[in-house]
Amino acid sequence: MMLKNWNPPEKPQPEEAKARLKSAKEKLSQLQMQLKEHKLPVLVLIEGWGAAGKGSAIGQVIKNIDPRFFKVFSIAPPTEEEQRRPFLYRYFEKIPEAGKFTFLDSGWMDETTREALNRQLEGAAYSNRIESIKHFERGLTDNGYLVLKFFFHITKKEQEKRIQTLLDSKDTAWRVSKNDLWQNKNYEVCEKVFDRYLTDTNSPNAPWYIIDSGSKRAAELQVLEAMCTGIETALHNGSLSVPLLQNVFPLIKMPKLKTVPLDKAIPEDRYRKELKRLQKKLSMLHNRLYRKRVPVIIVYEGWDAAGKGGNIKRLTGALDPRGYEVHPIASPEPHEKARHYLWRFWTRLPKDGHIAIFDRSWYGRVMVERLEGFCSENDWQRAFYEMNEFERELSNWGAVILKFWVQIDKDTQLDRFTQRQNTPDKQWKITDEDWRNREKWDQYEEAVDEMLQKTSTAYAPWHILESVDKKYARIKALKIVIEALEKALK
Amino acid sequence: MMLKNWNPPEKPQPEEAKARLKSAKEKLSQLQMQLKEHKLPVLVLIEGWGAAGKGSAIGQVIKNIDPRFFKVFSIAPPTEEEQRRPFLYRYFEKIPEAGKFTFLDSGWMDETTREALNRQLEGAAYSNRIESIKHFERGLTDNGYLVLKFFFHITKKEQEKRIQTLLDSKDTAWRVSKNDLWQNKNYEVCEKVFDRYLTDTNSPNAPWYIIDSGSKRAAELQVLEAMCTGIETALHNGSLSVPLLQNVFPLIKMPKLKTVPLDKAIPEDRYRKELKRLQKKLSMLHNRLYRKRVPVIIVYEGWDAAGKGGNIKRLTGALDPRGYEVHPIASPEPHEKARHYLWRFWTRLPKDGHIAIFDRSWYGRVMVERLEGFCSENDWQRAFYEMNEFERELSNWGAVILKFWVQIDKDTQLDRFTQRQNTPDKQWKITDEDWRNREKWDQYEEAVDEMLQKTSTAYAPWHILESVDKKYARIKALKIVIEALEKALK
Repeated sequence: MMLKNWNPPEKPQPEEAKARLKSAKEKLSQLQMQLKEHKLPVLVLIEGWGAAGKGSAIGQVIKNIDPRFFKVFSIAPPTEEEQRRPFLYRYFEKIPEAGKFTFLDSGWMDETTREALNRQLEGAAYSNRIESIKHFERGLTDNGYLVLKFFFHITKKEQEKRIQTLLDSKDTAWRVSKNDLWQNKNYEVCEKVFDRYLTDTNSPNAPWYIIDSGSKRAAELQVLEAMCTGIETALHNGSLSVPLLQNVFPLIKMPKLKTVPLDKAIPEDRYRKELKRLQKKLSMLHNRLYRKRVPVIIVYEGWDAAGKGGNIKRLTGALDPRGYEVHPIASPEPHEKARHYLWRFWTRLPKDGHIAIFDRSWYGRVMVERLEGFCSENDWQRAFYEMNEFERELSNWGAVILKFWVQIDKDTQLDRFTQRQNTPDKQWKITDEDWRNREKWDQYEEAVDEMLQKTSTAYAPWHILESVDKKYARIKALKIVIEALEKALK
Repeated sequence: MMLKNWNPPEKPQPEEAKARLKSAKEKLSQLQMQLKEHKLPVLVLIEGWGAAGKGSAIGQVIKNIDPRFFKVFSIAPPTEEEQRRPFLYRYFEKIPEAGKFTFLDSGWMDETTREALNRQLEGAAYSNRIESIKHFERGLTDNGYLVLKFFFHITKKEQEKRIQTLLDSKDTAWRVSKNDLWQNKNYEVCEKVFDRYLTDTNSPNAPWYIIDSGSKRAAELQVLEAMCTGIETALHNGSLSVPLLQNVFPLIKMPKLKTVPLDKAIPEDRYRKELKRLQKKLSMLHNRLYRKRVPVIIVYEGWDAAGKGGNIKRLTGALDPRGYEVHPIASPEPHEKARHYLWRFWTRLPKDGHIAIFDRSWYGRVMVERLEGFCSENDWQRAFYEMNEFERELSNWGAVILKFWVQIDKDTQLDRFTQRQNTPDKQWKITDEDWRNREKWDQYEEAVDEMLQKTSTAYAPWHILESVDKKYARIKALKIVIEALEKALK
């Protein structure tokens, strides 16, 4: 009941208002430099009624910021192409870099309330959407983002008046959308839906600020002042850790790597036959999931020289190249490092009906980034939960998610390293880093064990591929993928 | 849609279940010692359907805990006396001490859903209740509490069967309540209300665990395992800081203490006349607010020797002793220190229609506790928000809240200290600590300024009482109290 219970803030006297506006503008100008210095990313979401002055408020606010430090996006209803990705895809894509602002002229609220008003989003679907949004916002703020959400509120009468003023002149009439007119005619039902949304998503980490937009001047002051205190709070939080959340995901018990028997093998002739049979089957399934628009996400993690590449090749050998993509994941580029660590994976998600294969993945967070100190302990500790939540999001979207850990023992790795080094054609495959990582085998094993324990969920399970016999591992992977797809296509 | 979308966890094989039960019990036994060592308080809320086995699960779980370390409360519907306090009063009262468990056999969920089912709690009132509960739980977890919430779920059929079994024997028939029967008859509508409540209060800091209570053994295992991982996570969080929240409260601009003119005075004869007139008025208002059941909370803070005591005396002089209480606040007792810092204030809240006057208050957190290092920086930084939220809660309950800062300058304090020291009757009023605090005047002034800026809200404003002339300050206080009460009684 945020709108219903809402009292507009007391209006300061003109003299005071003028002084406060001046001081807020100066403050924001100063804060942008601190933002940059402390690498604080700021996402400003401006939502509200049509003709409430959202665009012009953004126009005023950005006058106080260096153009290199912000981006403004006007969000239109999603295109057909965008509808084939998870709801949050196009919003995650637009999150700012560290030290910069992104302004969204309406965003995930507008999209959600529109669908609710059109009765495309009801009951469980609405609840799931709200959950997605809450996770999205919390995932950002927990990772150091400031998320400022403003709702521009005007009365029915005021909206009507503004629409009329716009319509009266040829130069401005185009700015009145069908949706604005519909809103004004159905103000009460819109208000109810807005109110519910605001209440549902008013979280302590990313609260709503309801802006009294009856006067443009007053609205600008409210936004500027809230931005300034918001940034100051966030700068302070920058140095703090974030408590871990209680696990709420249905975990599947995984064995410790040390206890996994690695003597499994398959004879050459059976391998040939099985490979052919399974690839044929997978090929057929690929067609069906394309038609049924099921997205598939396959993650490969494993020891260096465990045979990930060859395993992936046997999988893709069965797939239509128009329907899949392999994403080799190396260290992040600077523009990737400047954003939420899941950003480079969100932006690589497949369209529905497509398969994305990740050769290494977001799990780098709890392996290499953990062990090399590329993120804080607090960061990787939190990541177990964040990954379960991320995959839950993809699973709710309809994705089949499979995660493979390609397992070998330390001796096998040494054999393969030596062989690579001694084979001119394969020397490029072995680097100093591989040898360095090998020295940390025990630490890695501990980290991997923890990862398997904490992130193998009913909806995105880990599978261990015993890959001392690479052929065995390939057949096993194909079988697991086929079984999962058959289940999903039933 | 938590119940609707819920999938019961896969049941382990009997052999595995037995092993896991044994290991969870042992783990909990071990964890209780770590709990004590790390001073972690654990609040376990067991909610769910009638006859779902809540009580017997608690009985099983506590077998693994030393009796000195836990308390169990069975919560009945609130008495008339309890209804005269804020909803959360009796729950806040029962929070555990550091290092101990409190188990609640149903609690604030049951009370809320009952009222919703009886249609006593709808619309805005329901939303406000949900907000209160979310703030309560977050306030606990932010301050280092572990809040574990379990919902014991059974099907309509299973509930019916269990009720029948209980009814079949004279020894157990008494355990079936009218409410249990009503629930079973109206299972679907209850489920809907439960589902909404679970969804509304499923926060990341205190998530719900839905327990498949079809089998008592399985339910026990689920609770024990969730408790163990919950405690482990919370122990880890114990060493972390908590991010500050964005301010969402309507703040009133306060002047810096240095700029407050202190030359205000009132002549003796006018003082006498005014005092008499105002006390008479206040006395009448006290009767009216008693009849109208308006609770009033008045906070006094100020410099040592500023005249708080005398000011309070002039206020209480006008009040019926059956209708008010003065709470002098000194350093917390050990049993108070062992709980959330607001606990000793929650438990001192007035009944409706009564006045509570706090001679010093929760604001000690951001003054003496801050400056003497009795709490961490993270703690007192967070406290500004927590106090605004606490007072918002009281204001939503219907309380009138007034906060006085009794102001003098440093020279005046020295005069009064010296006078006290030289007057045998008053020597007890001056201690070494007063002199020590005086040395920190500048630090205190800075802290007080920050407190005034950050906690003067529209619903619980600070008022500065210029008290170099104590009489002036008394008259001003009386006028402010009268004005606020008149406004509330209109």
